[in-house]
Amino acid sequence: MAAGLRVGAVARNEAKLEALIKSKPSQNVRSYAADVSKAEDVARVFDSVERDLGEPDLVVFNAGAFQRGSILDIDPADFERCWRIGCFAGFLVGQAAAQRMVKRGHGTIIFTGATAALRGSAGFVNLAVPKFGLRALAQSMARELGPRGVHVAFTVIDGQVESEPYRHLVDERGPDSLLAPEAIAETYLQLHRQQRSAWSQEIDVRPWSEKF
Amino acid sequence: MAAGLRVGAVARNEAKLEALIKSKPSQNVRSYAADVSKAEDVARVFDSVERDLGEPDLVVFNAGAFQRGSILDIDPADFERCWRIGCFAGFLVGQAAAQRMVKRGHGTIIFTGATAALRGSAGFVNLAVPKFGLRALAQSMARELGPRGVHVAFTVIDGQVESEPYRHLVDERGPDSLLAPEAIAETYLQLHRQQRSAWSQEIDVRPWSEKF
Amino acid sequence: MAAGLRVGAVARNEAKLEALIKSKPSQNVRSYAADVSKAEDVARVFDSVERDLGEPDLVVFNAGAFQRGSILDIDPADFERCWRIGCFAGFLVGQAAAQRMVKRGHGTIIFTGATAALRGSAGFVNLAVPKFGLRALAQSMARELGPRGVHVAFTVIDGQVESEPYRHLVDERGPDSLLAPEAIAETYLQLHRQQRSAWSQEIDVRPWSEKF
Amino acid sequence: MAAGLRVGAVARNEAKLEALIKSKPSQNVRSYAADVSKAEDVARVFDSVERDLGEPDLVVFNAGAFQRGSILDIDPADFERCWRIGCFAGFLVGQAAAQRMVKRGHGTIIFTGATAALRGSAGFVNLAVPKFGLRALAQSMARELGPRGVHVAFTVIDGQVESEPYRHLVDERGPDSLLAPEAIAETYLQLHRQQRSAWSQEIDVRPWSEKF
Repeated sequence: MAAGLRVGAVARNEAKLEALIKSKPSQNVRSYAADVSKAEDVARVFDSVERDLGEPDLVVFNAGAFQRGSILDIDPADFERCWRIGCFAGFLVGQAAAQRMVKRGHGTIIFTGATAALRGSAGFVNLAVPKFGLRALAQSMARELGPRGVHVAFTVIDGQVESEPYRHLVDERGPDSLLAPEAIAETYLQLHRQQRSAWSQEIDVRPWSEKF
Repeated sequence: MAAGLRVGAVARNEAKLEALIKSKPSQNVRSYAADVSKAEDVARVFDSVERDLGEPDLVVFNAGAFQRGSILDIDPADFERCWRIGCFAGFLVGQAAAQRMVKRGHGTIIFTGATAALRGSAGFVNLAVPKFGLRALAQSMARELGPRGVHVAFTVIDGQVESEPYRHLVDERGPDSLLAPEAIAETYLQLHRQQRSAWSQEIDVRPWSEKF
Repeated sequence: MAAGLRVGAVARNEAKLEALIKSKPSQNVRSYAADVSKAEDVARVFDSVERDLGEPDLVVFNAGAFQRGSILDIDPADFERCWRIGCFAGFLVGQAAAQRMVKRGHGTIIFTGATAALRGSAGFVNLAVPKFGLRALAQSMARELGPRGVHVAFTVIDGQVESEPYRHLVDERGPDSLLAPEAIAETYLQLHRQQRSAWSQEIDVRPWSEKF
Repeated sequence: MAAGLRVGAVARNEAKLEALIKSKPSQNVRSYAADVSKAEDVARVFDSVERDLGEPDLVVFNAGAFQRGSILDIDPADFERCWRIGCFAGFLVGQAAAQRMVKRGHGTIIFTGATAALRGSAGFVNLAVPKFGLRALAQSMARELGPRGVHVAFTVIDGQVESEPYRHLVDERGPDSLLAPEAIAETYLQLHRQQRSAWSQEIDVRPWSEKF
């Protein structure tokens, strides 16, 4: 779907980035290693992207970390780490994008959420707290930045995204039972292309066969 | 946007239909007069559409009636009438579409909601009750019919749709401050085109400059 | 809990009322037979209650009917009947109570909801549509009537209420796994007793052991 | 309302605590100075309370910090600080309470939220992100701990709480237009007293005259 787009991918380590880019050989993807939970890394990446690819029209925040656990046992350091990657980094990236886009008067920022953004569950404290927070951030930014021309949206990804370690699940669950990354990307691209008289702030996506 | 689609439009009276079709001269629109709050009219329209245009792949339920009023004064007959057009008709149309689409194992049904589907407000009883009900219907249908191949979505239209009587508002509020029907239609069409590994159940749309 | 309160109970048939009152022999309960989905019955009951017990300070709307079914099969007449008892009757009772309470500048109206008021599920169209609608009504009324001194609240009852036909479930699920009517009543009474500087609009109740 | 209860109050500085206790001369309140965003302080306070007052049956988390600001200008250090006090501290306190209460098989934990827990607004990033996160925590804990006998609830305080600096607002807005602390406390106490067959997880409170 990204044909014609120039894409900059950001991840914490080179190995992950190389794997990502090798998986999309046909696309024009440039990679940047950064820890997006650090303000200086975020600033550096935005500068590099602008130099290499031009000012970004669409910024997608996808980062997350999650360690399942009982409230009785969760290590406070893990609770903080999951929030730092899943929510604080979203703030840093969102702010950096907003500052640049408001100057130009246009642009799209999409934050990737999950069902855990709408509902806290037993064992999911470390996922729900950052995702609820990210949704709060997206709503607040949308209400502030919409009238300044910047479109901020939040997605609720409900289900398992198709990727190597989970592909066997398709045998159990049937065809199209995992979210195809291209299908998610298509919805993100449509959000970006929406005319400004009809912008969406929040949208869910899940496989047809998913219980919810 | 509907280029290439064959469209059947349904409305309660001929005059409204003629105006609708005259406003879309370039499109291939066929019109049907029916009161969709009557089961026999709904059945007749589905039969006619199938004969004229083939089995519908996408059914959109848009009907609604609203009379603002205080809870102290609302005439029970008005309360019922607004529900009959805005919710009961949605049930009839949704059921007729579902029965046909489940047989084929595919199809999309979209119910048009509003902010009043999420929030009841003073004076808006006659809008909120049917719209909340329509959202309940859409959610229940989505959970039942998704695993049978039928995509059911609900939209939250937040703002004034651009149309003749409201066009002067653009002067007050600025460009693109009313929802362009084509922009809404584009989002509906994208919902219909979503791959089944990543279906959306609910999406909001509003003008960039709208307070919410 | 209702010690000291004078209670009027309303139900559709005499047998149901007699059973209800026999189950509360210690309480001062007066019964009225009425079909609360009919405006004339509602008016008559309010008149009778005022004559017998005085103007009501607290009105609770509990009525409901539900027939589980697939969207493919639901008889439109059942869909309408469930709405007429579960939502339209709520409008009639709420309006009658509001008209009287606004004149006096105080009073409490509580509408009884369920999980199905927040979430539509497969097979639950006939429950979710009226309950969503009742919640829309309660919110709209609360926003209009609060500033006129009338407290409108909505409850989300999540779980099985303890009653004869379900008592065997306690053996399976353990102690206090069904909602005790007295425990629900206690929460209703506390809502009614709230000082007007801190009124609640919505509250859920469920057994401690309930999954949700 | 707290007559008969033994209360331990925790705040970051002695001056604030003294003021708090002087404002409730009639009550049996013991004070503890602690920074509840630090795990060691939280552990120390729980130990002191147990020694002085016995194991707590009801723990209320109220802490919060908020600095209004545009997403374009918020200092990341402020964003983090508001979260650390408003959400991370809630995790520490909630976890410490849960560990003790689960052993005994009973107890109540109440987290104090706000409208900003349900809705992100322009300028309110630093309030909404922690409050959304706190709500996620409360929901996750409720679902895990309910079946272990511990009642976890979240309150949505919507409006200005009555306190010295805001008392002049009553002149503008009318009587009972600010939330009386005693009225809020009454609702908290009722939550704590609920029978376990009918526990509430979330409840809102606002003045009768508040717009919402």
